Amino acid sequence: MAENNIKVIIIGGGFGGLTAARSLTNKKNIEVTLIDRTNHHLFQPLLYQVATAALSPGDIATPIRSVFKNKRNINVVMDEIIRVDKEKRRVAGKSGKEYEYDYLIIATGTRHSYFGNDEWEKHAPGLKTLNDALDIRERILWSLEQAEKESDPDLRQKFLNFVIVGGGPTGVELAGAIAEITRKTGIDDYKNVREKDIHVYLIEGEDAILNTYPESLSESARQKLIDMGVNVYLNTMVRDVNEEGVQAGKLSIPSSNVIWAAGNEGTPLLKKLSFETDRAGRVKVNANLTTENHPEIFVIGDAANCTDADGKQVPGIAPGAMQMGKYVAKKILGKKGSDEGFVYLDKGNMATIGRGKAIAEIAGFKFKGFTAWLLWSFIHIFFLIGFRNRFRVMAEWIWYYLTFKGSFRLITGRADSKSSEK
Amino acid sequence: MAENNIKVIIIGGGFGGLTAARSLTNKKNIEVTLIDRTNHHLFQPLLYQVATAALSPGDIATPIRSVFKNKRNINVVMDEIIRVDKEKRRVAGKSGKEYEYDYLIIATGTRHSYFGNDEWEKHAPGLKTLNDALDIRERILWSLEQAEKESDPDLRQKFLNFVIVGGGPTGVELAGAIAEITRKTGIDDYKNVREKDIHVYLIEGEDAILNTYPESLSESARQKLIDMGVNVYLNTMVRDVNEEGVQAGKLSIPSSNVIWAAGNEGTPLLKKLSFETDRAGRVKVNANLTTENHPEIFVIGDAANCTDADGKQVPGIAPGAMQMGKYVAKKILGKKGSDEGFVYLDKGNMATIGRGKAIAEIAGFKFKGFTAWLLWSFIHIFFLIGFRNRFRVMAEWIWYYLTFKGSFRLITGRADSKSSEK
Repeated sequence: MAENNIKVIIIGGGFGGLTAARSLTNKKNIEVTLIDRTNHHLFQPLLYQVATAALSPGDIATPIRSVFKNKRNINVVMDEIIRVDKEKRRVAGKSGKEYEYDYLIIATGTRHSYFGNDEWEKHAPGLKTLNDALDIRERILWSLEQAEKESDPDLRQKFLNFVIVGGGPTGVELAGAIAEITRKTGIDDYKNVREKDIHVYLIEGEDAILNTYPESLSESARQKLIDMGVNVYLNTMVRDVNEEGVQAGKLSIPSSNVIWAAGNEGTPLLKKLSFETDRAGRVKVNANLTTENHPEIFVIGDAANCTDADGKQVPGIAPGAMQMGKYVAKKILGKKGSDEGFVYLDKGNMATIGRGKAIAEIAGFKFKGFTAWLLWSFIHIFFLIGFRNRFRVMAEWIWYYLTFKGSFRLITGRADSKSSEK
Repeated sequence: MAENNIKVIIIGGGFGGLTAARSLTNKKNIEVTLIDRTNHHLFQPLLYQVATAALSPGDIATPIRSVFKNKRNINVVMDEIIRVDKEKRRVAGKSGKEYEYDYLIIATGTRHSYFGNDEWEKHAPGLKTLNDALDIRERILWSLEQAEKESDPDLRQKFLNFVIVGGGPTGVELAGAIAEITRKTGIDDYKNVREKDIHVYLIEGEDAILNTYPESLSESARQKLIDMGVNVYLNTMVRDVNEEGVQAGKLSIPSSNVIWAAGNEGTPLLKKLSFETDRAGRVKVNANLTTENHPEIFVIGDAANCTDADGKQVPGIAPGAMQMGKYVAKKILGKKGSDEGFVYLDKGNMATIGRGKAIAEIAGFKFKGFTAWLLWSFIHIFFLIGFRNRFRVMAEWIWYYLTFKGSFRLITGRADSKSSEK
């Protein structure tokens, strides 16, 4: 490629980074290097379904290379960027390699935050990567296996208590799916485990779950979870998580299955940039999505704390990241209108609770129950990347809806799940 | 269940153990406990397709529990048996639990053998479990990623050399599939990797690959592999495997991808039984599949070295194990004819080399090429357990045949593949 090409580096192949790269594909004089720690784009909104054995990793992830195959101006590199030299305009990877840029787009997302209690992570893994999802899945299955052969009632109950910390979308989805898979799917297979033995807890520190939604929808979701047998505790702060289980508010729940869905923070790379960040470690950007004194560095998606040109706070969800990715590409290409700043277009918001149950808010209209769930299903299948994945996920969901059987209940013996107890 | 039931313990949920349990399902006064280290039955003949990203783990494995769901006289336990007390007729698991039996069926299969060079395992993993397959898959993909960004030509070539040790069915299948996936599927995605840069080696100590087949078929397979670009070395003994690569005969091949498919031996449990074993650590059984002085202990499948009632050596393949499992169940049930000893019925033998290429020998007839491959595909789909799996595998194969695209090229960041280099 020509020496005088404009070099764009994108860090992160999530919704924001991928959309930016797509918007720059085949553009003249633009040379993009898309760098990600993993080799795949992950459709994170469905990650909880991998954790609960309803989908397989290959259903919700696509190798980034295959997305940009035959696109000559997009280079894909698997590396973890650990340093940014803002003056010399280059970034350095864990591999020891360095990459130069004219424009840098940072789209590294967030990771789970334990609010200063990092020692809890060992006992309460979060759900951000395929690896996390597979670990959680194996731990759930492994616990049911232990319960099946355990005769001591106390030890047994510990294996059958499932605790999800955090009542946001991920926590609610996990609680619903775990209640379904363990209480309905699981029971048939495990002869010594009764439905009433399995307890699923959802612990939320605030006074409502899904608290970005209108109260009526949030309350409807809580009611549905209770109907499904989930114990929902509001206004309950976690005090400790250790190998015995969870201490939260006045509760003390012995459990070998605690999952953390309570908080997010920016990735470590963001902290090293010495830009102004918010409490969650996200970089504060202006309405052009650029950073202080560095108009050539953009931060988009979850990694950014952004108030758009209309004064709205951009939410940390996939549509926000994708719109930001598109805007940044426009800006780099110098397209007209891009100088007026980014405006977030709210296309609505939805969360699923279980089979046939969801809530959605679209253009001010509220949906719940089966209608919301159908809407949720169609939109999620529509946005999945690749025909292959869409077809497979649809087939899996129809099968699951009809039979209640998750397909992927295999314990492959991942190191973590094996050594997690004893 | 009643106290005077006959207690049968089956160790191992492979082809032999599963068939034995199925044959004892719903039989009066029989109580079966099927114990396996994992929670799934694995269709091992297709494991190499998981290693080469053509199939996903869920396609070729089924939770053992779901096979015996609603079968009241079959208990499934996930545990690893580490001790057998032949006098007191009980076995002990790693979990600390003990299980009593009237009849014991040992169907623990084999694991890979490094002929006394166990230190090679770290650099040349074998392929027996889903875990092995996923590790090998990630290592292959990871190597291509490294090669893509490596500029030092020697280091780069090491990532692009793939060495398979052992020219039996597994070795041949792996060599063929790796040549296909890396040289055809891979090239499109990796912009800096050319087809001619990738070298696949198959190293065999004897003077033929697939040497249990007639010479004409074995030679045809070798020719097909060469056409596919595999370097086949016969009469070449491996001298050393280390982190640099492989020393074999006069060859010295730098490689970060060495896979071991050269030998099998009985599992450690067999050695502890103090029965007579052969060189490969398999227990010698009589034609009733029972052991010396212990007519209540059966050894079946790969774990047994058996000459049947007709004087034929039973081969260590799935049909052999399944027939043995069926026979042992008959014997326990006291069915007539079972006293005359086990007779192995040879239903033929087949191995695949690549897309549209296989060899087969059935009732003395030899098949090769596309016909053999179709035969191979149908038979393997037919014997897969579960409608779900059959449907999925068929769909995947048709897709793969048409597009040459393996679906599951994800690096999820399994601990092993990450730390395997540097």
